[in-house]
Amino acid sequence: MSHTPTIAFHPIGTVHNAHPQGHKPLTWKGTTSQIEIDPRWQEGLEGLEGYSHLSVLCYLHLSQGREPVIKIRAQGHPQMPLVGFFCTRTPLRPNPLSLTVVELVERVDNVLHVRNLDMYDGTAVLDVKPYLTRGDCYPEATVPEWIERLWAIHDEERKNA
Amino acid sequence: MSHTPTIAFHPIGTVHNAHPQGHKPLTWKGTTSQIEIDPRWQEGLEGLEGYSHLSVLCYLHLSQGREPVIKIRAQGHPQMPLVGFFCTRTPLRPNPLSLTVVELVERVDNVLHVRNLDMYDGTAVLDVKPYLTRGDCYPEATVPEWIERLWAIHDEERKNA
Repeated sequence: MSHTPTIAFHPIGTVHNAHPQGHKPLTWKGTTSQIEIDPRWQEGLEGLEGYSHLSVLCYLHLSQGREPVIKIRAQGHPQMPLVGFFCTRTPLRPNPLSLTVVELVERVDNVLHVRNLDMYDGTAVLDVKPYLTRGDCYPEATVPEWIERLWAIHDEERKNA
Repeated sequence: MSHTPTIAFHPIGTVHNAHPQGHKPLTWKGTTSQIEIDPRWQEGLEGLEGYSHLSVLCYLHLSQGREPVIKIRAQGHPQMPLVGFFCTRTPLRPNPLSLTVVELVERVDNVLHVRNLDMYDGTAVLDVKPYLTRGDCYPEATVPEWIERLWAIHDEERKNA
């Protein structure tokens, strides 16, 4: 395989919210965050408010330097099968890079007010992309049976919380 | 903003297809590619074939070192308004990082056979994530009016091709 051995990226912004490192809410759904983009790129955000949703890519600094565990159970749940880590969204991956689709509530200058971002306060943002229904949205997509079971377990937990 | 100034990533694999650099097909939709993942991570792929779709993150090496153009027209199209580059998926962004949702046709050991990947032959892959209908799929998402117009122009072009 022939490609550049090391790729250097730089944060373009920072996540601000009420969830400091290690304080994971029961669900990130409904939580709000502010993504403060480096003012250097502010003009590049003009028009972004025309979208309802964005894909946000962050740097998972807490995973830096930690090796992926090759076979895992999703969220460490004993009812889940052992699968390769690529079958999950675990932060322990060869490149600690996250992807979250968020709702864009509003843009105020260089600050994006978003909902559902599953990142701790202070997380570095690498990119923000418009969510395009054509290309990003596949309602016909299917997932393994154990993912459906995991979602049912989550629903139950939240109902009982 | 307090965060690591430089983040180092490493390719985990390479795209192989019939589209060498600069030979862009009229549409990437329907094209097939093979994503060859470093054998080091092969066991981490076990079970991935249970998903119909994946999110593929690549390194856009042709954009490396090129500054983003702050205000652009989508795809350079004269009928499109001038908007900030973040409103588009232009490869000229602060971090040359792509995101494509692809169809997973099959996995053979460390090779993922996929459809719809819009990357040239030889492109470095940084991550592969399962596409989760819950979390990644928002049929209710809305886009600016000019994006709808751009899609209509594309449909017309393909009909006449």
